[in-house]
Amino acid sequence: MRDEEFIRGRVPMTKSEVRAVSISKLELAEGEIVYDIGAGTGSVAVEMAMTTRCGHVYAVEYKKEACELIRRNREHFHVDNLTVVEGEAPGILEGMPGPDKVFIGGSKGKLQEIFDWIWNKNPDTRVVINAATLETLASVSAYLQEHKMEAEIVCVQVAKARKLGDYHLMEGQNPVYIVTIEPPGVGAVN
Amino acid sequence: MRDEEFIRGRVPMTKSEVRAVSISKLELAEGEIVYDIGAGTGSVAVEMAMTTRCGHVYAVEYKKEACELIRRNREHFHVDNLTVVEGEAPGILEGMPGPDKVFIGGSKGKLQEIFDWIWNKNPDTRVVINAATLETLASVSAYLQEHKMEAEIVCVQVAKARKLGDYHLMEGQNPVYIVTIEPPGVGAVN
Amino acid sequence: MRDEEFIRGRVPMTKSEVRAVSISKLELAEGEIVYDIGAGTGSVAVEMAMTTRCGHVYAVEYKKEACELIRRNREHFHVDNLTVVEGEAPGILEGMPGPDKVFIGGSKGKLQEIFDWIWNKNPDTRVVINAATLETLASVSAYLQEHKMEAEIVCVQVAKARKLGDYHLMEGQNPVYIVTIEPPGVGAVN
Amino acid sequence: MRDEEFIRGRVPMTKSEVRAVSISKLELAEGEIVYDIGAGTGSVAVEMAMTTRCGHVYAVEYKKEACELIRRNREHFHVDNLTVVEGEAPGILEGMPGPDKVFIGGSKGKLQEIFDWIWNKNPDTRVVINAATLETLASVSAYLQEHKMEAEIVCVQVAKARKLGDYHLMEGQNPVYIVTIEPPGVGAVN
Repeated sequence: MRDEEFIRGRVPMTKSEVRAVSISKLELAEGEIVYDIGAGTGSVAVEMAMTTRCGHVYAVEYKKEACELIRRNREHFHVDNLTVVEGEAPGILEGMPGPDKVFIGGSKGKLQEIFDWIWNKNPDTRVVINAATLETLASVSAYLQEHKMEAEIVCVQVAKARKLGDYHLMEGQNPVYIVTIEPPGVGAVN
Repeated sequence: MRDEEFIRGRVPMTKSEVRAVSISKLELAEGEIVYDIGAGTGSVAVEMAMTTRCGHVYAVEYKKEACELIRRNREHFHVDNLTVVEGEAPGILEGMPGPDKVFIGGSKGKLQEIFDWIWNKNPDTRVVINAATLETLASVSAYLQEHKMEAEIVCVQVAKARKLGDYHLMEGQNPVYIVTIEPPGVGAVN
Repeated sequence: MRDEEFIRGRVPMTKSEVRAVSISKLELAEGEIVYDIGAGTGSVAVEMAMTTRCGHVYAVEYKKEACELIRRNREHFHVDNLTVVEGEAPGILEGMPGPDKVFIGGSKGKLQEIFDWIWNKNPDTRVVINAATLETLASVSAYLQEHKMEAEIVCVQVAKARKLGDYHLMEGQNPVYIVTIEPPGVGAVN
Repeated sequence: MRDEEFIRGRVPMTKSEVRAVSISKLELAEGEIVYDIGAGTGSVAVEMAMTTRCGHVYAVEYKKEACELIRRNREHFHVDNLTVVEGEAPGILEGMPGPDKVFIGGSKGKLQEIFDWIWNKNPDTRVVINAATLETLASVSAYLQEHKMEAEIVCVQVAKARKLGDYHLMEGQNPVYIVTIEPPGVGAVN
């Protein structure tokens, strides 16, 4: 899905290329319960919900303004399998259904607690994290090392041509680390 | 889909991240006729065929060895809406059904003729090209300029962590230009 | 040299990392006559002039405002082996001394004519070009192909950490193609 | 300097573009005492020693085979202001002269101790680190955070054209984080 199709405010949005790679890493299957934690504008949540394979998406976001954007994008794209959950993860997740897949776009420094909630609920959950800062990446690495877990880590850097008269200037976007964590046991299925 | 799941020979394969972005740019819809020209191992063709939205995929490839790989991958993934077309584009495409979407992974220096075939058959066809060489990129640009057509051009560069003892070394993959051409008229629908 | 040390206006400046790689590719030697064509703020010209090995640098620039910046940077860094040449290349170069090395940061679409001037004056001149647009890159490639010349082509993409509270966000800069052309015969010296 | 000019064994070598950026960040000045810790083939050490501005370079390396390569490169380039120090840092550094500038290309997991030695010897030392692994980067970050020090962090990703018949394939090299640490006080000079 194209970035221009989404209703955007001043909330930062995952760019289309990083979104495509991140969702592809989740390997969504029919009927799955999916979370988008730190959903921002909801672009990842909406794109996940629109893949026919996905059962229900919970978009978790603590900023009021961003939640409003997600609701508007949900309406704009006529999505009906997407619930906006306003509040901070993991606290707000208490009592919610266990996930099959989780995308984490933002964690407000509570990555460890969010991981704990996820794998307590369902130890088989596949998780994809987008890290744009060195600290988030270090935080993921520290958790993996402490729990002796493995992950696939890729860094995606996109440059996009912008027209300047008759010329196309390549403009660099911010590199994003996409970390995919598949707890032991799940991989065996494939 | 993961690279390791595909049966590979010595044929170069589009990497999973570039595949995900490229397919996302095609915006495949239900029942569409899709071509993968220069299909190689067939990884893009198979992934397109497996998205439930896509009607039928024609994987066009002139190398015997690669065609055999595509057939094996088709079987491996239980795909039944994928036809292997052995031969060189655009010659081999004579008489085949008009495309809705085309992915071009290889063109053997016949990009201009392939473009001509595509838009003669269906002037609305959305085309996504992967260019790994400067000459392919220049060839696309020259065609666009000559025909006063616009395109979205992104360059995707991926680095992937490889375990070295307790360390993760980031290994650079080759950058790929992903060019998306949407003929005038189609865009108006959005 | 750091970007912050230069006096900058609204003129785009070659970033320090790309400047370092580009100057390194020139392999400047003592007493050489060096040109910086499309000199902009003069950051490349000043850094070249300040390496003790370089004899004299001519900074060629057609924008009045940019020429003024180069003069101010020349003064700021106490450089005395740098001459500002106000006007358009290659016309303005008529009658000037033959170059040993040339850096081209901008060519106003006259790359072919500039190349012709350079190698007419001195067929051994080593040239380094920075191309930020696809068209400049294609123009260089076309010249090389036509004249059966070889070049080293690298693309340098830099991301730089920016502090956001306690976090470091990696910000992508524009990728720049750095093309190094060494006419046949020169390489034999090494 | 070009990679091909160096005598190389199976020892990994800092690539020319990363070398140029790293040395540029050190801002070498005449007569300075410079260390290259984890010197590998000695390409950084030799290039630093050959800049006329630099006084003496100590290339510290614990692998016998690599030390031999550094000695051969020193001879090959007729460098006389370069000493090979065979052994592990920081232990081997005991009693050696205080540094003005230090480049760290490898640290065998002893980054913290090496930092301690450096800034104990000379609290004004400017240090540039090349990190190719996430763990080295995390280790640098942890030290900075603990000591409330600031650094400039850039990630340099280079792709280089390789000729394939008439085509130029862009080949991705590994991204390298270049971290520049300038202790408080030094910056005030500028």
